[in-house]
Formats: sequence, C-alpha cells, structure tokens
Amino acid sequence: MERAKVRLFVEDPLGSGQRVNLTRDAAHYLFGVMRLKEGDAASLFNGEDGEWRARIVEAGKRGGALSCEAQTAPQSNPPDLWLCFAPIKKARTDFIVEKAAEMGACRIIPVQTEFTNAERIRRDRLQAHAVEAAEQCGGTFVPEVSELQKLGDLLNAWPAERQIMFCDETLAEAGSALPDAGGPWAVLIGPEGGFSERERDRLSKAPFTHAVSLGPRILRADTAAVAALTIWQQQMGDWE
Amino acid sequence: MERAKVRLFVEDPLGSGQRVNLTRDAAHYLFGVMRLKEGDAASLFNGEDGEWRARIVEAGKRGGALSCEAQTAPQSNPPDLWLCFAPIKKARTDFIVEKAAEMGACRIIPVQTEFTNAERIRRDRLQAHAVEAAEQCGGTFVPEVSELQKLGDLLNAWPAERQIMFCDETLAEAGSALPDAGGPWAVLIGPEGGFSERERDRLSKAPFTHAVSLGPRILRADTAAVAALTIWQQQMGDWE
Repeated sequence: MERAKVRLFVEDPLGSGQRVNLTRDAAHYLFGVMRLKEGDAASLFNGEDGEWRARIVEAGKRGGALSCEAQTAPQSNPPDLWLCFAPIKKARTDFIVEKAAEMGACRIIPVQTEFTNAERIRRDRLQAHAVEAAEQCGGTFVPEVSELQKLGDLLNAWPAERQIMFCDETLAEAGSALPDAGGPWAVLIGPEGGFSERERDRLSKAPFTHAVSLGPRILRADTAAVAALTIWQQQMGDWE
Repeated sequence: MERAKVRLFVEDPLGSGQRVNLTRDAAHYLFGVMRLKEGDAASLFNGEDGEWRARIVEAGKRGGALSCEAQTAPQSNPPDLWLCFAPIKKARTDFIVEKAAEMGACRIIPVQTEFTNAERIRRDRLQAHAVEAAEQCGGTFVPEVSELQKLGDLLNAWPAERQIMFCDETLAEAGSALPDAGGPWAVLIGPEGGFSERERDRLSKAPFTHAVSLGPRILRADTAAVAALTIWQQQMGDWE
C-alpha cells in the first residue's frame, strides 16, 4: 500500500472513526513544515493500535484534528530486547537512541559506568528521538527510554531470567555466537574507555551474561550498538 | 601494551630510527590540542608499516618531528571488502565513512543512484574522516575514499569476480545468509528512497549480486551500512 507522506506518533487511542486532536507541536509539523491541508491523509500510530490512515478534518495554527479511516498495518512489537548503554557525547547518544529504535530494541536504558562521563541525561529529549526514529522507520512501536541508572544498581536488581549480551573489546577471542536461550535479553554496550576491571569481573561472573566480540577494531559506542543489535536480531530476533 | 595517548596517521615511511616531520595541522593537533611536549611518545601508522611508538624530538608552533622507536603492532589490513553507498545529508555521509573505516571496509565508494540527491561530494573531507576513524579505532589501515560515480557506470565496469551484497528493503523475505563465496566482495547500500525499479532489476539480474534483508523495519542509510557490514564481517570477514 502507498504510504502517506507523513507518519505521526500520537498518544490517543486509534480506531475506526476515532477523532485525534493534535498538539501544538504536531499541528506546526503537519501544517507548517509538511504543508498538509484539510482533506489530506496522514499515517498515525500510538504504539498499541497499529498504523491507521487518517484524514485531516481540521487544520489550524495551534491545533487541528484527524479522523481515523482504516488500519493500514497491524500493531507489531519488537522482541523483548533491552539496549543498555553508557551515554557519551550528546550527538552520539542521540544516535544510539535513534538506532536502537530502528533496530528493534523494546527498551533503552542509559547506564552510568565507572568510566562514563555523563552524570545526567535529558530523558525527555532522548524519548523524543526514539519517537522520531519510530515515525521514520515505519514501525508501530516506540521503545521507552529509562532514566540514567548506575550499572551496579541495575545489576543488583537484574531479573535473573533476562540474558545479557555484553560487548567487551578486551575479549577478541569471545566470538559472536550466542547461546540458544529464548526469553528476554539485553545488549550492554560499555563506555568509550571500556568497562572497569571490577565491572568486567562482575559481568563475567554473573550467570546471565554472555561476552561477545565485535571484531579486531575498536568501535565507537554508536557503531558497537548497531553491530551488537544486528548480531542479536539475526540470531535470536525478528530479522529471519 | 599501554597505548600512547595519541595515534597519528602520517604519509612518511616508518621504521626503526626513522624521522617523521609533522605537517602544520599535525603539529597543531599534537602540541596545541593534545599538549604533547618534546620527549613524549605518540603512536604513528601510515597504512603500510604497522604501528610505531615514536618520540617527539622537535615541537614547534608550525611543525615538529618524531623519531620512530619500535613497532608496537604489525600492519593489519581488512578483508577485500568495498562499501558502496549513496551519499545522503552531510552529517550522515560523514558517519557512514567513519563507520566503514571502523568496521573494516578496505575501499569506500560513494555512488550516485537515480534517487540520490547528492550531485557531488567533498572527497578530501570524507578521506579525512576515514583517517580520523582509523586513528580512533586502533587500526593500521586507512580505506581509500573514491570520487562519486554513477551506479550504472560502476556496474558497467564491475569486476565479475567481486560479489555484491545489496540491501533492499523491498526484499524482506531475502534473509541474511550469504553464499560461501570467498574472494573479493562489496556491500551496496541504497539511498533513502531505495533503488529505482530499473536499478533493482539490473542488480537482481547480475550474476554477482546477492540480496540481503536487514529486518522488518526501514533503516536509515548509516544504520544499514553498519548492520550490513556486521553481517558480512561475521560470515565472511575478520570477526571470527
């Protein structure tokens, strides 16, 4: 089916005949930036009800409304895969969130490690990047971005049934095969300086962790995130 | 072995006792930005002679020199893999070149397709990005960035023994297994609008092409480049 020119994430329920009121920002985007007019179509999704073709029934400077016509794609959720990563410089942190959404992570957890410089993140800004990536990549799901947590705290509360694939550049011999363990998983990407000795030791000893090598060159964190998610999606996820 | 604080790509031959004169830019980086002084060590590589520890023997505002002491890593070249990609917006094109260098492509070819907006590239600037990525990722090789070429011309002159892995979002059923064909390869990433009907047809019919799917979501070109290079490196390259 031909895609509408604009895909928009909304918070409202979607269904046949359902009216969706636009926020001021969304109205500016649709009518100011994308130049849509009353009668034009747009695709809407809310992370729960699939994708809907909707018709613009009201277009104003500060608001507007659409009316849902037909579902154009069923809801499709990614596998139960978290991406945990140590935030880096602003632009690259934005990229990691964008890429995690494209690659089909269902939750994104910024993690503070011993060698992480970032002491805080702008969770709302990162969440907006995840929304934008979902709008762009044609998905119907938006991963949730969590608040920054300390790696130690995260591991203390870790659910034992969730496996962790962790990528450590000191483990070139680790290979990239994952055990055939179904169920929930997480990919953990370290900071630019790598994990500390203590962190590496703790990760290696935990029964739910699996070290994976990402080749002989040192990858930047955003590159490593995409490479690791590719390996997981190919072996365990929704790519086959 | 402890890494020197600075890794620098140079054009000079490297060998025991070899003196390397610095360009003005390199001198500014080493002495102005990184605050190195006479007697400090730096790592040098030139893409041919491996990595060398060198000692600063002259430090000035507009130049300087180092003397090679010992080889700290042998020369290590990536597999014979080209990355061909359709240039997109400036920042993302820079990212693709950076990521190709990190991921171990040996040559980077910007390609103009029917749906590519870019009509020219700054080859020198992209080459500088490849150098910077090699300095950063600990490699001893710098991939060469070619001038922009038309996809049709590239395929007309294509060496028949080089396989092409091409990533097409319309081929979700293609899977991601590659034929067990050794020898030279290339990864081809399309533009944001995808390949044209005609291009897709030509690619599908060529005996040296293999379509691969990158999952159910639409990936941006920079994400797709990393994902595709990961798949190739894992199956055919130097990651195992």
